[in-house]
Amino acid sequence: MSERKGRRGGGGRSGKRAARQISQTKQAAYIERNIPYFEVLEESGLAQIEYNADTVLEEIGIEFRDDPEALQILKDAGADVQGELVRFPRGMCRSIIQASAPKEFTQHARNPENSTIIGGKRTVLVPAYGSPFVRDLDGGRRYATIEDFRNFVKLAYMSPGLHHSGGTICEPVDLPVNKRHFDMIYSHIKYSDKPFMGSVTAPERAQDTVDMCKIVFGDEFVDNNAVTASLINANSPMTFDDTMLGAAKVYARHNQATVVSPFILAGAMSPVTVAGTATQILAEALAGMAFVQLVNPGAPVVFGTFAAAVSMQTGAPTFGTPEPSLILYTAAALARRLGVPFRSGGGLNASKIPDAQAAYESANTLQTAALAGVNFMLHTAGWLEGGLVMSYEKFILDADQANMMPILLKGVDMSENGQAMDAMRETGPGNHFLGATHTQANFETAFYRSTIADNNSFEQWQEDGELDATQRANKIYKQMLADYEAPALDPAIDEALVEYMATRKASFPDKDY
Amino acid sequence: MSERKGRRGGGGRSGKRAARQISQTKQAAYIERNIPYFEVLEESGLAQIEYNADTVLEEIGIEFRDDPEALQILKDAGADVQGELVRFPRGMCRSIIQASAPKEFTQHARNPENSTIIGGKRTVLVPAYGSPFVRDLDGGRRYATIEDFRNFVKLAYMSPGLHHSGGTICEPVDLPVNKRHFDMIYSHIKYSDKPFMGSVTAPERAQDTVDMCKIVFGDEFVDNNAVTASLINANSPMTFDDTMLGAAKVYARHNQATVVSPFILAGAMSPVTVAGTATQILAEALAGMAFVQLVNPGAPVVFGTFAAAVSMQTGAPTFGTPEPSLILYTAAALARRLGVPFRSGGGLNASKIPDAQAAYESANTLQTAALAGVNFMLHTAGWLEGGLVMSYEKFILDADQANMMPILLKGVDMSENGQAMDAMRETGPGNHFLGATHTQANFETAFYRSTIADNNSFEQWQEDGELDATQRANKIYKQMLADYEAPALDPAIDEALVEYMATRKASFPDKDY
Repeated sequence: MSERKGRRGGGGRSGKRAARQISQTKQAAYIERNIPYFEVLEESGLAQIEYNADTVLEEIGIEFRDDPEALQILKDAGADVQGELVRFPRGMCRSIIQASAPKEFTQHARNPENSTIIGGKRTVLVPAYGSPFVRDLDGGRRYATIEDFRNFVKLAYMSPGLHHSGGTICEPVDLPVNKRHFDMIYSHIKYSDKPFMGSVTAPERAQDTVDMCKIVFGDEFVDNNAVTASLINANSPMTFDDTMLGAAKVYARHNQATVVSPFILAGAMSPVTVAGTATQILAEALAGMAFVQLVNPGAPVVFGTFAAAVSMQTGAPTFGTPEPSLILYTAAALARRLGVPFRSGGGLNASKIPDAQAAYESANTLQTAALAGVNFMLHTAGWLEGGLVMSYEKFILDADQANMMPILLKGVDMSENGQAMDAMRETGPGNHFLGATHTQANFETAFYRSTIADNNSFEQWQEDGELDATQRANKIYKQMLADYEAPALDPAIDEALVEYMATRKASFPDKDY
Repeated sequence: MSERKGRRGGGGRSGKRAARQISQTKQAAYIERNIPYFEVLEESGLAQIEYNADTVLEEIGIEFRDDPEALQILKDAGADVQGELVRFPRGMCRSIIQASAPKEFTQHARNPENSTIIGGKRTVLVPAYGSPFVRDLDGGRRYATIEDFRNFVKLAYMSPGLHHSGGTICEPVDLPVNKRHFDMIYSHIKYSDKPFMGSVTAPERAQDTVDMCKIVFGDEFVDNNAVTASLINANSPMTFDDTMLGAAKVYARHNQATVVSPFILAGAMSPVTVAGTATQILAEALAGMAFVQLVNPGAPVVFGTFAAAVSMQTGAPTFGTPEPSLILYTAAALARRLGVPFRSGGGLNASKIPDAQAAYESANTLQTAALAGVNFMLHTAGWLEGGLVMSYEKFILDADQANMMPILLKGVDMSENGQAMDAMRETGPGNHFLGATHTQANFETAFYRSTIADNNSFEQWQEDGELDATQRANKIYKQMLADYEAPALDPAIDEALVEYMATRKASFPDKDY
C-alpha cells in the first residue's frame, strides 16, 4: 500500500462518523463457497466443446481489427495472421494462458479491508454496468447524470452484500464523452473505498485510470498489484476491435486485471444452440486472454461471459430463460477447467420497470450464476431493460438478494449446534421451538432477514399503505442516500486527484465527442 | 381403464372444438430430467442426518393422536408405544419403507395421455394448494368461491407447463365445509382431464374421493392403480393427528398415493438450523411413510417437505431465503437415498401481491426445487401471501416459469445440430447469425418464448400502455377463461357423478360445519 494511504482518516466529528459508517457496513470482502458447483455437462461434453473451440480458432479464426501491433504480437507468438484474421494452432491459446495467467488474484481497494480476491471458490458481487438511463419511481426513466453515478457509488458502498463499487455504473451523459471517465473514476475513489473497474472506452482513458490509481496507491504499488479490473468486451462473433485491444494493452502492461468478455446475444451473435454458443464464447475468450498474456505474461485475466438469447420473432434480447442459464453453467465449468477466474451476470432482465418480470428474470440469472460458480458477478444490482436502465429501486431489491448469497454458498452447518439435537430433545412432539434454549442461543444469527420483503400480516400491510416492493425500495434508497457518510480520504490525495483531472481536462478541445 | 372411459368423447361441434382444444394444449405428462441433481451435502453429512433422524425416532418419538387403530398397527409392527407416543427402533421405519414402497408410480388421469409418473428422474408440476382467499387486479383480495375453484382448474388444464390439476387449489368457502369436497373433486373431473389430488379433511371425504374416482375409472381399476395423490401433512413437530391418519388409511387401503409432508415453519415447528430441520423432516416423513406401508404394503407414498423459515422478530413465515433452499436440497437428497419420490414447493412467497417480492421469492424456490430434483412440485403456480391467497395473475406468471422447466432440466443438446459448428463456419467473424442456414433450420424450436415477458423496446412498451407483468397477466387469464373449452366427458359418467353427489349431500344435516 502506498505511504499516502497510511495518512488517511484524519479524525474530527465527520471522521468519526465516517468510521462508524464504515464499521456499520463492515463485511467480508468476498464470499467463500463451501457448496459444490452445479454442472450440467459431463466431462465428455465439456471436452467436445473445448475441441470445437479449438476448431473455431484453427479453422475460422478471430479478427483483431485496426491494431497492427496486436497482429504482430500474435504473429510473433506463432499464430497464422492473414490480414486481420488470426488463426491459432490447436491448443496454442490454452497453453499460453495456462503458462502464465494467475488462477486467482487480489484486487486491492484503498481500504485494505475491502481488498478482494477474484478466483477459486470465491464470489465477488458487483453492481450493474453501462446503462445510459436511470429510473426511479419519482422521476421515471431519464438520461443518467454524474449525480446519479455518485448516488449509485454511495449505495454500493453502503450495501454490505456488494463487495465492489463496479465501473461505469451508469453513463453520466451530462458530461462530455471524452472527459466523463475522470469523474467516474474520481467518484469511485472519493465516495467509496471498495475496489472498482477502470475506463475502457479508449486506451488513453485506461491510462488516465492507471495514473489516477497511482495517485491513490503509489506508482510502484500499482505497477505490481491489481487495483482495477476492467471490462474488455469481444465484438462477437469472433472479433476484437482496436478500442478494446488498446485498453487491454494498457491495463495488461500495468499488471491491472482485465475481464475478457464475449458479449453474446445468442441467435444473432452466435448459433441458436447452447453448445454452439458456449463453443464460440470459449474460442473468443481463449483468444482474448491469450492476447493479454502475450502482452504481459502473468497479468491477471478473467474469463467473462455475457449471454442472452434473442427472440427469434423480434430480435430483442431475452433474459432469465433456460438456455442462457445452461450456457452460463457450461461456461463456468469451461473456465474452471482452463484454470482462470470466471465472470458472468447477476440480475439480468428485459423488463422496463422493477416488476415481477424483472424479478423472475433476475432471480433466475442470479441463482444460476451463484450455483455455477461465478467469481466476478457483474450486474448484480440495479439492471433493468436489458442494461439500458439503472434503477434505484431495483438496486435495493437486488442488494437484498446479494445479502443472501453468502448464506446459500456457505452451505449446511453440520456442527453440533447446527445438528440441533438438543433442541428437538428439549421441545418434543407438539410443542413449539420459539422458547427453546437452542433457539434463544441462535436467535441473532438464525435465518436471513430480508431488508425489503414484507412478511407482515395482510392487515398490517394494508395499514402500512399497501406498498409493493418497489415502493418500499424507493423509501429505502432515499433513506440510505440521506444517511450516507463518505469514507475518509486523505485530503492530499483528494487534492492531487482534482488537480490531475483539471490539468488533463484542460488539455482537451472543449467539445463533447 | 374402465369400460365407461372408452365411451367418452361423443363428437358434435362442441366435441370437435374440445378435441382441438386438447390437442392445442398437448404436452408431455411429466418432465424427464437429463441434468444432475444439485447436492449441497456430502455423503457423510447426509449419513449424519439419517443417524440423527433415527435418534429422534428412537429417543424422542412421534405422537400419533386420537387414533387407537394406528397405535395398534405400529405396536404390532414392533414400535414402542407409550400412550400416544411412538418410538421406533433404529432403522425400523427405513426398512419397512424400503421393503414395500414403490420407487416410482403412475398416477392415472381420465385422459390416458395425461397419466403421469411420479418418481425417478421425473418432475411433475402441480398448481398451488389450500388458499382460503383469491386475488386478482379487478376484485382485489376476497374469499374464494367454487367459481374461482373451477376457474383455476380450467387455467391449469389449459397451461401446457402444468402436468396436474392439483387438489384444494382454493377453498370454495361459499359451499358448506362438509360438502365442498364433492364439488372440488367433481370440478377436477369435469373441467380437466389431468390427474388430481383427493380430499384429506376427513376419512369419509377421502372415501368419497375414492368412490367418485370409481365412477370414472371403474372399481377394479381404482383398487389397483393410483388415480389420486393426496396430501397428508404432519402436525409438526413430531405429531400426526387423527384426521390425517384417517385419510391416509383410506387412501392406502385403496392403493391410492399419499404425499406425507412435514409442514415446517423452521424456528417455530423445528430447530432454527438447516441440519436440525432436515433431521426432523426426515424423522416425521419416515414415521408417516412407514405407517402407510404398514396399513398397506406397496401403496404409493411420496416423501413430502414444506419448509419455510419464521422471522425471529415477528414469527411470520418467510420464503425464498437461503435456509429453506438448503433444507430443500438436503431433503431431496435424503429422499433419493431412501428410494421414494419427493415432493416440495414451487412458487412460495410471502408477498401480498404479485410484485417483485413475490417473483424473487417464487423464482428462488422454484429454481431450487427444480435443481434439487423434486418429483411432485406442489404450489408451482398461483401462490401468494404464504399460501393464504391464490392469485389469478400470479398463476399466469408462474405458469410461464413452469413452461421453462423442461428446457432447463433437459440440459445441453450435444448432437451435431446442437454443436452448430457449421453455423460458425458459415457466418464467420463480424457477421450475424440470423440468416444462417442453421439458424433458419432451428428457428421454430430455438430459445424459450415467454408467454408473459415484455421484451419489446421501451418505446413499444410505452405505446402498449406501460403495463407491468401483472397487468399483462390479468388480460391473459381472462382471455384463457374466455377461450376455455371443456374436455369431453362421457355423459353417463357425468350423470352418475352428479347423482352420487346429490345422494351423498342429501344424507347430511344441512348445516355448514
